[in-house]
Amino acid sequence: MTTTPTFAARLAAAVRDRRTPACIGLDPRRESLPATFGVDTTTDPQAVAKAFATFCREVIDVVAPLVPIVKPQLACFEAVGPHGMAALADVIAHARSKGLLVLADGKRGDIGSTAEAYADGWLAGPWAADALTVNPYLGLDSIEPFVKTAAARAAGIFVLVKTSNPGSKDFQDLRIDGRTLSEHVAAGVESLAARTAAGGPYGAVGAVVGATWPRQLDELRAAMPHAWILVPGFGKQGGRAADVRGAFDAHGLGALVVSARDVIFAHARPEMNAGLAAHQWQTAVERACRDMIQRLAADTPAARLCGG
Amino acid sequence: MTTTPTFAARLAAAVRDRRTPACIGLDPRRESLPATFGVDTTTDPQAVAKAFATFCREVIDVVAPLVPIVKPQLACFEAVGPHGMAALADVIAHARSKGLLVLADGKRGDIGSTAEAYADGWLAGPWAADALTVNPYLGLDSIEPFVKTAAARAAGIFVLVKTSNPGSKDFQDLRIDGRTLSEHVAAGVESLAARTAAGGPYGAVGAVVGATWPRQLDELRAAMPHAWILVPGFGKQGGRAADVRGAFDAHGLGALVVSARDVIFAHARPEMNAGLAAHQWQTAVERACRDMIQRLAADTPAARLCGG
Repeated sequence: MTTTPTFAARLAAAVRDRRTPACIGLDPRRESLPATFGVDTTTDPQAVAKAFATFCREVIDVVAPLVPIVKPQLACFEAVGPHGMAALADVIAHARSKGLLVLADGKRGDIGSTAEAYADGWLAGPWAADALTVNPYLGLDSIEPFVKTAAARAAGIFVLVKTSNPGSKDFQDLRIDGRTLSEHVAAGVESLAARTAAGGPYGAVGAVVGATWPRQLDELRAAMPHAWILVPGFGKQGGRAADVRGAFDAHGLGALVVSARDVIFAHARPEMNAGLAAHQWQTAVERACRDMIQRLAADTPAARLCGG
Repeated sequence: MTTTPTFAARLAAAVRDRRTPACIGLDPRRESLPATFGVDTTTDPQAVAKAFATFCREVIDVVAPLVPIVKPQLACFEAVGPHGMAALADVIAHARSKGLLVLADGKRGDIGSTAEAYADGWLAGPWAADALTVNPYLGLDSIEPFVKTAAARAAGIFVLVKTSNPGSKDFQDLRIDGRTLSEHVAAGVESLAARTAAGGPYGAVGAVVGATWPRQLDELRAAMPHAWILVPGFGKQGGRAADVRGAFDAHGLGALVVSARDVIFAHARPEMNAGLAAHQWQTAVERACRDMIQRLAADTPAARLCGG
């Protein structure tokens, strides 16, 4: 009898195979697509959705050999209505067909049977993502249905702990009995991660911690030894490779570093676009993706992944 | 020149017109639909989505003359995939065509341009709901894009403050400088509500406070004088009419009380289903809706709405 590997094991294998913790965010924006798509002035949802699907499929074709995982931003597809959601399903299926893991970034959260519905839909049902981001505000019982479905389907979740925006101080940094709210949430995440680790180093429950808070990344890594950490805010939001070092374990695992716009809209970056014609935007994407991978390998414990 | 009434004004007018603060939750579940739909053993998403759309449209036809607003639960539709989302768009459009306000219950939350995408999609763009529930964990700057879009489009948002589940104690009840996290969030909500009140008693930003916490409802009503309060947890989750009294102002306004399964699946309640054949499930819905309205009128300040 064979056992399906856990999400944590599949993720570690994929990161080792591609030798990078880079996660490419798929955040399509009408006004930012390469000019060849011709939708910057269109508001017809069907045309925009079709452009999003084509664009994301072509980005996936470029990055699939290079990175372990992609992260579609659900808000971008929802903004286009039902046609956008059909495009999202198409993009998820294409990414999986290319051997990529798929993390649906929806920051979902609700109680009881409603949380079950989200978990079933995204991790088991029609969307069939490998993992989902989850918001912890409603409490640990609101996270349990996601954990249960994730464990049953060899999927994963990433719980918001400390987000990359300045306003994350408003509530996440409030201090209760000497610990911040983020640290209280991190304790809950670690407990769920340890419970689902199934003998491996990491569990089905990970955390989201922004690249904009290097010191807290160090502390939260230590507080959640069984949790993969998803680190947004690299690149455009100001986080540098050196800032995300703290998210890794000693083997160069345990962290996924996200870049979205810097890679997928690299056609708008002069240093990535040099010498390219408009229709060669995929080459700019490849350059930017390789640049990100190189910077992570140069300045973080991800370098140890290259040892083989 | 005429000015579009604000969401708060439209909501107050609708509540006064129907003389009830009852909000019917549209939470379709395959296994709970009346037997005449025949989808309890189907897993074909297209068939389930079609049943959801038909069921919700028929519920809407029953409740539209009786209540001011309906609240589709996005998770239920998402669980069915892209076909479910197309059904949701159809349900929202049908509710609006029947003169109902529509509150999209998605508990969305993200930062910067991603929050903008959610706000545009749900409050301005293709989904065209009148209001959206929002999760505050990411901080006040993550709520601002929703406030901006809501104010610009005469729409509204309801921010989670104290949810109805037992696990809401895990984080929402943590005490910082003598105030719970919920109270800190409530202070932020009140500030945004007062800022968007535009001379009226209520602003574009409301709050979600569960019916399961009567004492906190009293306190949070006092702490957020400019915020409409959406009160889930009435009925199935244990909240009684007397428990929600604290959410109202002296005029019987300021509160929306939600019931979902007790009303839409009233065919499964013997006291509502007495004497009905299977195909008469809409009569059970009407009885349950009228029963809820009657209980709220008997035991809460909503009685004052009946004064004319």
